[in-house]
Amino acid sequence: MAKKKMVYFFGGGKADGNESMKNLLGGKGANLAEMAGHKDLRLPVPPGFTITTEVCTHYQNGKKYPAGLEEDVITALGKVEAVIGKKFGDPKNPLLVSVRSGARKSMPGMMETVLNVGLTEKTIPGLIKASKNERFVYDAYRRLIMMYSDVVMEKAAGIEPKDDESGIRKQLEGVMAAMKKKNGYKNDTELKAEDLRKLCSEFKAKVKQVLKKEFPDDPMKQLWGGIGAVFASWNGKRAVSYRKIEGIPDAWGTAVNVQSMVFGNMGSSSATGVAFTRNPGNGENKFYGEYLVNAQGEDVVAGIRTPAPINDYSKSDQNRKDKTLEKLMPKIYKELVDFRSRLEKHYRDMQDIEFTIENGKLYMLQCRVGKRNGPAAVRMAVDMVREKLITRDMAVLRVNPSQLDELLHPIIDPKAEKTQKAIAKGLPAGPGGAFGQIVFSAADAVKWAKEGKKVILVREETNPEDVEGMRAAQAVLTARGGMTSHAALVARGWGKCCIVGCSGIHIEYGKKLLVTPSKTFKEGEFITLNGNKGLVYDGKLSMMDATEENKILNDFLGMCDSIKRLGVRTNADTPEDAKKALQFGAKGIGLFRTEHMFYGKGSEQPLFLLRKMIISNSLAEREAALKQLFPYVKKDIKETMRAMNGYPVVIRLLDPPLHEFVPREKDKLTALAKELRISHVELEKRAENLHESNPMMGHRGVRLGVTYPEITRMQIRAILEGAAELLKEGLKPYPEVMIPVVGEKHELLDQRNIFKEIYAEVLKKFGLKKIKCLFGTMIEIPRACIVADELAEVAEFFSFGTNDLTQMGFGFSRDDIGGFVPDYVSKGILPEDPFQSLDQKGIGELVRLGITNGRKTNKNLEIGICGEHGGEARSVEFCHKVKMDYVSCSPFRIPIARLAAAQAVVKERTKK
Amino acid sequence: MAKKKMVYFFGGGKADGNESMKNLLGGKGANLAEMAGHKDLRLPVPPGFTITTEVCTHYQNGKKYPAGLEEDVITALGKVEAVIGKKFGDPKNPLLVSVRSGARKSMPGMMETVLNVGLTEKTIPGLIKASKNERFVYDAYRRLIMMYSDVVMEKAAGIEPKDDESGIRKQLEGVMAAMKKKNGYKNDTELKAEDLRKLCSEFKAKVKQVLKKEFPDDPMKQLWGGIGAVFASWNGKRAVSYRKIEGIPDAWGTAVNVQSMVFGNMGSSSATGVAFTRNPGNGENKFYGEYLVNAQGEDVVAGIRTPAPINDYSKSDQNRKDKTLEKLMPKIYKELVDFRSRLEKHYRDMQDIEFTIENGKLYMLQCRVGKRNGPAAVRMAVDMVREKLITRDMAVLRVNPSQLDELLHPIIDPKAEKTQKAIAKGLPAGPGGAFGQIVFSAADAVKWAKEGKKVILVREETNPEDVEGMRAAQAVLTARGGMTSHAALVARGWGKCCIVGCSGIHIEYGKKLLVTPSKTFKEGEFITLNGNKGLVYDGKLSMMDATEENKILNDFLGMCDSIKRLGVRTNADTPEDAKKALQFGAKGIGLFRTEHMFYGKGSEQPLFLLRKMIISNSLAEREAALKQLFPYVKKDIKETMRAMNGYPVVIRLLDPPLHEFVPREKDKLTALAKELRISHVELEKRAENLHESNPMMGHRGVRLGVTYPEITRMQIRAILEGAAELLKEGLKPYPEVMIPVVGEKHELLDQRNIFKEIYAEVLKKFGLKKIKCLFGTMIEIPRACIVADELAEVAEFFSFGTNDLTQMGFGFSRDDIGGFVPDYVSKGILPEDPFQSLDQKGIGELVRLGITNGRKTNKNLEIGICGEHGGEARSVEFCHKVKMDYVSCSPFRIPIARLAAAQAVVKERTKK
Repeated sequence: MAKKKMVYFFGGGKADGNESMKNLLGGKGANLAEMAGHKDLRLPVPPGFTITTEVCTHYQNGKKYPAGLEEDVITALGKVEAVIGKKFGDPKNPLLVSVRSGARKSMPGMMETVLNVGLTEKTIPGLIKASKNERFVYDAYRRLIMMYSDVVMEKAAGIEPKDDESGIRKQLEGVMAAMKKKNGYKNDTELKAEDLRKLCSEFKAKVKQVLKKEFPDDPMKQLWGGIGAVFASWNGKRAVSYRKIEGIPDAWGTAVNVQSMVFGNMGSSSATGVAFTRNPGNGENKFYGEYLVNAQGEDVVAGIRTPAPINDYSKSDQNRKDKTLEKLMPKIYKELVDFRSRLEKHYRDMQDIEFTIENGKLYMLQCRVGKRNGPAAVRMAVDMVREKLITRDMAVLRVNPSQLDELLHPIIDPKAEKTQKAIAKGLPAGPGGAFGQIVFSAADAVKWAKEGKKVILVREETNPEDVEGMRAAQAVLTARGGMTSHAALVARGWGKCCIVGCSGIHIEYGKKLLVTPSKTFKEGEFITLNGNKGLVYDGKLSMMDATEENKILNDFLGMCDSIKRLGVRTNADTPEDAKKALQFGAKGIGLFRTEHMFYGKGSEQPLFLLRKMIISNSLAEREAALKQLFPYVKKDIKETMRAMNGYPVVIRLLDPPLHEFVPREKDKLTALAKELRISHVELEKRAENLHESNPMMGHRGVRLGVTYPEITRMQIRAILEGAAELLKEGLKPYPEVMIPVVGEKHELLDQRNIFKEIYAEVLKKFGLKKIKCLFGTMIEIPRACIVADELAEVAEFFSFGTNDLTQMGFGFSRDDIGGFVPDYVSKGILPEDPFQSLDQKGIGELVRLGITNGRKTNKNLEIGICGEHGGEARSVEFCHKVKMDYVSCSPFRIPIARLAAAQAVVKERTKK
Repeated sequence: MAKKKMVYFFGGGKADGNESMKNLLGGKGANLAEMAGHKDLRLPVPPGFTITTEVCTHYQNGKKYPAGLEEDVITALGKVEAVIGKKFGDPKNPLLVSVRSGARKSMPGMMETVLNVGLTEKTIPGLIKASKNERFVYDAYRRLIMMYSDVVMEKAAGIEPKDDESGIRKQLEGVMAAMKKKNGYKNDTELKAEDLRKLCSEFKAKVKQVLKKEFPDDPMKQLWGGIGAVFASWNGKRAVSYRKIEGIPDAWGTAVNVQSMVFGNMGSSSATGVAFTRNPGNGENKFYGEYLVNAQGEDVVAGIRTPAPINDYSKSDQNRKDKTLEKLMPKIYKELVDFRSRLEKHYRDMQDIEFTIENGKLYMLQCRVGKRNGPAAVRMAVDMVREKLITRDMAVLRVNPSQLDELLHPIIDPKAEKTQKAIAKGLPAGPGGAFGQIVFSAADAVKWAKEGKKVILVREETNPEDVEGMRAAQAVLTARGGMTSHAALVARGWGKCCIVGCSGIHIEYGKKLLVTPSKTFKEGEFITLNGNKGLVYDGKLSMMDATEENKILNDFLGMCDSIKRLGVRTNADTPEDAKKALQFGAKGIGLFRTEHMFYGKGSEQPLFLLRKMIISNSLAEREAALKQLFPYVKKDIKETMRAMNGYPVVIRLLDPPLHEFVPREKDKLTALAKELRISHVELEKRAENLHESNPMMGHRGVRLGVTYPEITRMQIRAILEGAAELLKEGLKPYPEVMIPVVGEKHELLDQRNIFKEIYAEVLKKFGLKKIKCLFGTMIEIPRACIVADELAEVAEFFSFGTNDLTQMGFGFSRDDIGGFVPDYVSKGILPEDPFQSLDQKGIGELVRLGITNGRKTNKNLEIGICGEHGGEARSVEFCHKVKMDYVSCSPFRIPIARLAAAQAVVKERTKK
């Protein structure tokens, strides 16, 4: 068997790999190959090669490289040397390379990078001669020592510094600061060539002192050290934590990209930059980017210096006065604009590109699909279809369902905002609005959030170590960094409210103070952020839902609707909810909970009557109470059906155990006892009788209907009379009566007898021939899935209640999982909380069984899902796959359901 | 299509039907046909015909007979007339017939019978002439009027008398009593022919007065009235109630047998009797029966007169002085003995026969498989195999598993019994011993039992209306009736303690008094019954289990073992239970619950330590408590393994939610707080934190093991060290470690890691190479059945916990089903409580899935069931069918499981 190819070369208009090889070469490697080698592109990519992810996997299982890797790397290095005309380790014309990670899916900043590999005592003179820039060379060298000692010698070797300050990077920074202080310099740029040369010597001495090892002066040793460090960083703490959040499998591994260095810090005709082919913040089809003259790429990404705009469009308040690249280097800019349009045409998507200008020559260092926030994703999808760049199917896949959430994210109530003056302004890096208590470290953010507090993480800048804290916070505010800084990238990816580069603020970590021009805030004080405009406010401002008319979103969702097969209904318990859901695109109600009317405002009287019914001890007492309750129930149902006119409304009969409604307050108990003319003792006795050990599996749902048929009778009468009255008004009510907690056919038969009886009675009373109405059941008991064939002989529809099905299928009481499910997720026993996303393997199999069995005996069976999984994207895809007719979810999740339903269709087509 | 045959003739050595047609002809009809027509028998059966159960079903759906039935009946009647040489309605030589029910399965006394049909004003003189016995004829006539007016005119017509006294039967009895009083007669026999003739006139007048209808004087009208009444009685209250208890489907219907009358009340050369081919009370191969001279059959069954023994063997204290049939009519007796042996040889089973002697001629009226109690059933099965009458397979099916229960029923502690003098003596009609409070009506028995009281139903005699009360009582005591009376038959069928014909007692219903020679008891006072000896004692005597060595039972169970495939283990939590189970034939323990040691006597200290562990707030505290707990846990497990030496012992790790163990008593809380050096408030806070809404689905089982691995560690160490110590003693311990409440493979992996770690540690500590031990899981969570293929990759055995599987599969909290499951059963929504007998359709399907999935990935998987279904006969059969390896049940259920397992094999063979 032929040896597997481990190393892929690219450069000089050629490439071994291409874009389709992302799993093997990582995203970065595949795109470098594509940019370098594809006939439509052949962009000026510095030559290099990619070591495959398979090598990483091999390396992880034993910390050894596969046989033959060394030779392959040397061969590839030879090709690079040939293309670029320099030689690795050559004292006269030395080649320097970067060593970077590149996973299948981008993990920005989570793994290690070593630059300037190949600089040694021997090659330094040659490079000085070639570059004619001694300062640049020593600057590169001190960067190499710093990175290498930190990343390769300390981190990859597994040396744990005792504290932050004892880490080698900090110590070297200390050496550098001391030199600057000694010389009275404020900025790094003031360091002269001689200073830097001396600094390099001091660095190497420090490295030896702290790490008890020499900084290697052999280029090949440096190269292999770098490669090993990148592979090792795949299992570094930050990377593992990020993968857990993003759901990236540990087994994927990372590729390593070794690429010849080009330098943006060669002087004033050099620069480095990052750009997006369209605006990632709002989706506009405008070239958007930032650059820094005389700088290395990481200076832009790290957010240490605030970069300049590449063009007028990219200007912000912070850099309005800076010269644009378009003005400064018009030829280069024109070339870049040309590359931009070729890349978009080729990739048919917005690209995030990194470029370097070395002595007036433009190099493309990277291109990849650009991250974007929700509004931008939607806009780009809609625009690109209009531009005929992509098909509708492609467009639908371009928006992540969770990104839609951003469009529907809370924003600061504009009325409240008008009355306030912002205390600071930064770059709008993450959408929506948020308020919270100030914390100054990621660890505090995590801790406070666990205590149930809403926090805003405030940092000078963020780094990959902060991701968990950013996750835990409501929003992130940084004093430094641009739209492409770490904080901005991460927040945008998550759709989290974020403001970066807020230069007006100042943070004192030691005292835990946030200093703004007008006020100094202590830890724990409230601030509010407008992530859409980059504004910071004092205190808590009220929020509102972003439900305003959104033309582009509606266009996008319309596109989804034209593709999707699944119907989308809503869970709504009031006419108001029903109206809101219609605006969001619901075509009917999948779950109307009759018990809702006993909660919340306006429920005083009906709740009192319900309690009276519950505490009743005889059929006569109960029927009297039900009679009083009837008009309330009828009105609620009728008005909801009116709001949903023409669409189906699934009404679930009383579900919770009666004990839930028994009052605990003394005055309410007294009123109840008085109304029923019984003593307090008797009342308490009756209430006590209703108490259950495991109410979730107790006397509830259809079990109430069987033991108290009069309760079923009242509810069905309310539904059918409500419908009859609407019919008389000329409307088109379409109720579906749903029996909850059913596990056996005879339960349904029992309740259907009541249904038939009342149906006949109501027809007669209203002189009607027919009321359009279905009779069906919730499927939420595991046994119901098993005997669904029998249930479907009685039921005209099924609606899967996957919340309860998850509870009983797993034996997880939702109220009690706090004691163990967090441990389960953190130990990897469960991939996630099964109440968030449907457990497709276990509970999903029960659903599948239920559907297969049900359709066996009833081909016309209408099948849907209600409950929260109906608005969760992966669960919606599952519902599509198992051929449900519709999903139902809360009004705000409807757009997500519509998108996920469309994506399910497209994914299915793609597979065929 | 040919018309279905509706009427089957039998008589004169011929028969249209035979024994195999029980479904169509009912048990009685099929056996009459068999007795009359089979070449080996051709017994003297009075000719007659059977109307099929299909006609009954037709009749029930619309109260009409199928077309052509009338003609068929007339044709069959003609054949009867031809055989017997009499004519129906013939004034000179009239034929009289009986009209009786006969269902597929015997329902003694539950349906109606009309005798002497065909007696009219016209036929009376002819019969007088033919019988030369005017008194007999009028006696027959008054019986016909009484029965017919009651059964046909009142009951079948659906007339509801206002109270018991206003019923026509009571009124006619009143008329008769008045006549007797007027004439100063004490017994019915004193009534002369003239009296009876007059009585008949008065009866007819009364009937007209009360029911507003004439008693019919047309023989055909009488016949159809009788047939209709029998069919109608299939849906009578008593029959429906009996069918519910016995599980007889409503759809079966009854046949109607019309048979020429023969008379046991023709004078002193006439008699009637009932006999069993073997003793139904103990199984001895002796002819056993009772008879009455000059009486009709119902006089024996009704228990109104105490009958005489047919032979010396059948004598009891009550009838020791009566002349036996053997002595009185030796020729007839010899003939009967001949019939007895022919019937047993033919049917290969004990037969219950009814015979009548009319003027010195023996007629066989009925034969059917005789009911017997448990001990008798076992003995007959064993004997008949020895006699080569039946095969072992047949023998195994001859004992109903619930009958074995009787053999294991409590009896009065002989020591206690020795010290007491019986206050009364009757016939030992139902096995075992029982004590309870006296009640005097079936209704009271039901009511008191519902209140949780143990009652003894004391009646003059019982009738079919009493069955529910008999069911509810611990035992039944009647003053009248013989071993074939209603009370005796029913109690024997159920294996319920019962004494009948206790003539020394007297009951005053009005005052609710039980009067015995030595003492008068009020309602509610305690008595104790010895159903094996027929003795009644004052007060509560202590009971004991009937666990004494039982040779015949052991022979029988040995037969079962030679046939069964399923293994039988026991659920045992102590060495004592283990020893007892071994005696009962268990081959291992299927469920040892570690938590048991924290309940009951001797548990004070371990429970305290467990509580200490539970209330611990840190790993260190918890580990300290676990260390103290360790020796107790190890000792318990070790000694149980010692008792079960050589057999497997499945040990389930801690299962219940920890909160269950938190004490409620103040002094215990104080002691605990003191031990832990925490405040009361703190203790209560910690206890409160453990509280759950639905503990059944909360933090329990493996979930505890995952969150507190130290608890698992301690338990596994206790098991393996216990085993290691036994190995060192030269014993053969075989533990199986069972993880409870598992629903996901990763839970098992997590716990198996601990298992492996401790296993290695213990081997090392004891210098052992191997400890025989399996690692497996309980399957009790619905999801576990779905993902069983994955679980079986880790588990070496599955044990189905069908209690919890039923709870979660149905969503029925066992503690809370009291609110609705009784309604479910009474409304027919569920056939029975699924915790009693496994719900094969739903929960069974989950079990089936679990087994199929599990064996898919692990062919060597050991599969069993623990929990109460493992000792329930139908569930055991299910376990056999789904190919489990063993069942496990409580020690006392083991014989039942062994029998049920053998029956499952035989049933399977029979089907093939």
